Amino acid sequence: MNSEDQQLLTGETSVRRFRITVMYDGTAYGGWQIQPNANTVQAELQAVLKRLGGSDVHVHGSGRTDAGVHARGQVAHFDFPRPFTPEALVRAMNACLPDDIRVMEAAIVPDGFHARKSATGKEYRYFIWNAPVMSPTERLYHVHVPEPLDVATMQAAAGVLIGRHDFAAFSANPNRFVETTVRTIQSLTVARLDEQITIAVHGDGFLYKMVRSLAGWLIRVGRGEVSSEQTAGILASCERTARVPTAPPQGLFLWQVDYNA
Amino acid sequence: MNSEDQQLLTGETSVRRFRITVMYDGTAYGGWQIQPNANTVQAELQAVLKRLGGSDVHVHGSGRTDAGVHARGQVAHFDFPRPFTPEALVRAMNACLPDDIRVMEAAIVPDGFHARKSATGKEYRYFIWNAPVMSPTERLYHVHVPEPLDVATMQAAAGVLIGRHDFAAFSANPNRFVETTVRTIQSLTVARLDEQITIAVHGDGFLYKMVRSLAGWLIRVGRGEVSSEQTAGILASCERTARVPTAPPQGLFLWQVDYNA
Repeated sequence: MNSEDQQLLTGETSVRRFRITVMYDGTAYGGWQIQPNANTVQAELQAVLKRLGGSDVHVHGSGRTDAGVHARGQVAHFDFPRPFTPEALVRAMNACLPDDIRVMEAAIVPDGFHARKSATGKEYRYFIWNAPVMSPTERLYHVHVPEPLDVATMQAAAGVLIGRHDFAAFSANPNRFVETTVRTIQSLTVARLDEQITIAVHGDGFLYKMVRSLAGWLIRVGRGEVSSEQTAGILASCERTARVPTAPPQGLFLWQVDYNA
Repeated sequence: MNSEDQQLLTGETSVRRFRITVMYDGTAYGGWQIQPNANTVQAELQAVLKRLGGSDVHVHGSGRTDAGVHARGQVAHFDFPRPFTPEALVRAMNACLPDDIRVMEAAIVPDGFHARKSATGKEYRYFIWNAPVMSPTERLYHVHVPEPLDVATMQAAAGVLIGRHDFAAFSANPNRFVETTVRTIQSLTVARLDEQITIAVHGDGFLYKMVRSLAGWLIRVGRGEVSSEQTAGILASCERTARVPTAPPQGLFLWQVDYNA
């Protein structure tokens, strides 16, 4: 009998903190956070961990994603009462989870690690399908913009948004959840590959619906509805108005969360 | 009143043959061909054309695709009783179709054109996601193979299959629908891009489940379960056995149909 079997038989527990990286297709979910009347990613993960761990497990994400938003690299942590190795936990969770949620990796981390509080930055990507007719097999993971978009103009507007600014004009209900609306965008790129345009934004943190607001504005610029020169004025206004639309959720992926090594 | 309005009002008809190129996500369909107890792509197209045309319209595809198989470039023809321009017909059909089926283009063609009989060749692509864990946002359009695949060995096996051969060993019920099981494969390539492996096959025609059988065999070769040298023997046997599995439908796309100009 090995020590792990011994532990289980004697009822001893060995609570360890796990960090997991989670990929999901958000199409079928009401977002990350548990809520009544909707399936959520957090609820699916907690249900599986309760089954595997034998008791309630609270999963802390690096942040919420909205209904319909996807993740390539969401990060979460939780304290787990059973002595799984990280590899065994990945296998067991994926065997129980629905196939639109997958744990890509797991690691045992110090108790001081916190998926949200320890995060030092995040990258999001927003995907646009820019063609007259939407491709059926891309529709779940892109927003469709049929009018030709001018990527050079979008890049010019993006350049204005890079840096440390008050992004209140690019957030929905900017003061509802946070004390300050100042954030730093380290990089914001717009690139075309055939019909696909990718907006990639890396920052120290993001306000509520900030990335979809940035994408909504850049799409208006690319369509020529507004000029890239108007971007600085919108930013300086610190006021969210209908000039900045919120782009739809299916184009958005939480791409990566940064932590200090 | 323009001449088109005049025609509609006088009840005159102007039956013209249209060729359409159709893209679809086959996930929700029981394949191309109309059948009881399943949604099919042909049924969706015919329902929309009946609504737009005012009478039954039979849509002839270049060939069937099985349940769950996708198309990037399915081609079909039909005779339509109302004087739509091709551009107007594309717009009207896409306004009525579910968003997992899209008409990419339409053209008026001579009455002698037949989507199946006039076709001179086809290209299919089969997509494999070759990584330990399946990406949730790729799951609908790839088959998942967790074990590392050796692409060079798959390429060696593919080379044996190129040319004019009796492909009975790579078809399900090979003699059920056709008089001969001899076909010509002009090209068959296997290429990796990160986790994605693409099998692209171009030929003058394909037997029932032939592409999925070729993919099933190449995956076995890539896994090292069988050697690429066994391919010639399988081909020469002209006998379908369990040595050749049928790869699952969600990896397969009807990519393109060829016609003489």
